[in-house]
Amino acid sequence: MYNKSMKVSAAIAIIGNEILSGRTQDINLATISKWLNSLGVRVMEVRVIPDIEINIVETINELRRNFDYVFTTGGIGPTHDDITAESVSKAFGLKYEINKEAFKILENYYKPGEFNEGRQRMTKMPSKCKLILNPTSGAPGFIVENVFCLPGVPSILQSMLGGLKNNIVGGKTILSHTINLQTVESQIAKPLSEVQDKNKNVEIGSYPFFKAGKLGVSIVLRSDNQSKIDDCKLQILKFISAENIQQSKKD
Amino acid sequence: MYNKSMKVSAAIAIIGNEILSGRTQDINLATISKWLNSLGVRVMEVRVIPDIEINIVETINELRRNFDYVFTTGGIGPTHDDITAESVSKAFGLKYEINKEAFKILENYYKPGEFNEGRQRMTKMPSKCKLILNPTSGAPGFIVENVFCLPGVPSILQSMLGGLKNNIVGGKTILSHTINLQTVESQIAKPLSEVQDKNKNVEIGSYPFFKAGKLGVSIVLRSDNQSKIDDCKLQILKFISAENIQQSKKD
Repeated sequence: MYNKSMKVSAAIAIIGNEILSGRTQDINLATISKWLNSLGVRVMEVRVIPDIEINIVETINELRRNFDYVFTTGGIGPTHDDITAESVSKAFGLKYEINKEAFKILENYYKPGEFNEGRQRMTKMPSKCKLILNPTSGAPGFIVENVFCLPGVPSILQSMLGGLKNNIVGGKTILSHTINLQTVESQIAKPLSEVQDKNKNVEIGSYPFFKAGKLGVSIVLRSDNQSKIDDCKLQILKFISAENIQQSKKD
Repeated sequence: MYNKSMKVSAAIAIIGNEILSGRTQDINLATISKWLNSLGVRVMEVRVIPDIEINIVETINELRRNFDYVFTTGGIGPTHDDITAESVSKAFGLKYEINKEAFKILENYYKPGEFNEGRQRMTKMPSKCKLILNPTSGAPGFIVENVFCLPGVPSILQSMLGGLKNNIVGGKTILSHTINLQTVESQIAKPLSEVQDKNKNVEIGSYPFFKAGKLGVSIVLRSDNQSKIDDCKLQILKFISAENIQQSKKD
């Protein structure tokens, strides 16, 4: 059971009709989650919501109360359907106005005469926000309290995470170990459940996979304590050996 | 703006630590969303939540009140971390018990002696639920009121959707048209916004893409009315021609 007092948590709000409709495949969830995990922060909820102001405002306000950090992706570009900055301003009751620092960055970034109305729109943000620099395409993201707003284009988002490290105070890093088996879940369900009962501090996940026509199961052990993972691993290796189940390479 | 009285809506709850951690890439969102869209149902929210009972119960109860249909994926297998069926039972205040029909299906599906404890666990469901047949691997999903519970393995989930068509009463099908342009968003932001203002019944999305080193923008027009999409398309083609912007093939 997740205990907020002991762990540092995050949520992600993926903003965009194109993700909801299935037109665009999100890959930012995994990028942000793995990066946060390396900093000792665990993503506990993700919401995908449409480009509708009331939905964005309510989602941001709910998530920022319930989690230590909130990351948003999408909706900070130059077009009419990019409404994240304005919606986040409303969520916090802040003015939505030109950020002078962002204006200066983009004024220098573009050639003379190219800093048009659409591009200037990308400098409108919640008042008093902190910028997230964008080494790929100029236009910054922004931070308001515990909410970090990033763009939706994966390559740009990835390039912006590096600069954010010092803004995150994480807990213990969550370690993991994976055991891949040539078996089916039902064959190991009972002994695996017994190992879970004896090892409450290790989270044991069981994930079936089908690869090249072969069935298999990945058992993933997660904990912030390596020796507890090791103990748990030994107990699992013991029963799979007793039941004559083989390990396999998944990849 | 989304208007519940006119449209048929759905939400998806993706249940699983492996998705939240970024270990497994979800692809079920797009499968379900596109399938529902073809039936005139629009996915308006997706949540990814951990394998924790209280989170599942609260999420199901919130989504089933707010949307016409709710689909869950994951957590209905045989292992200890598969807690969707028990959690959905709690959300509805129903008993979590062996479903006789499901028991009979799996008893016939497996060879004598292979219908073990783990596999029998997959027949425990909310009382009085309706089964969703599984042509791939036997174990059924289930329906309680407006909540449809499906497995997480994409190939199995896909094979189960076909049989569900008659359980969904959709609205008008949402039609779409995509125009791919060799330009950047800021170049078209202003005229595109003017077209959106003049065409309130068409939802216009603008999505930048980077492919083979080339920048481009996909403009996606969505409406349940084809002639309104056609009108809108003509207005866009007019301004892109005036500004000498070329169309491109995205794929």
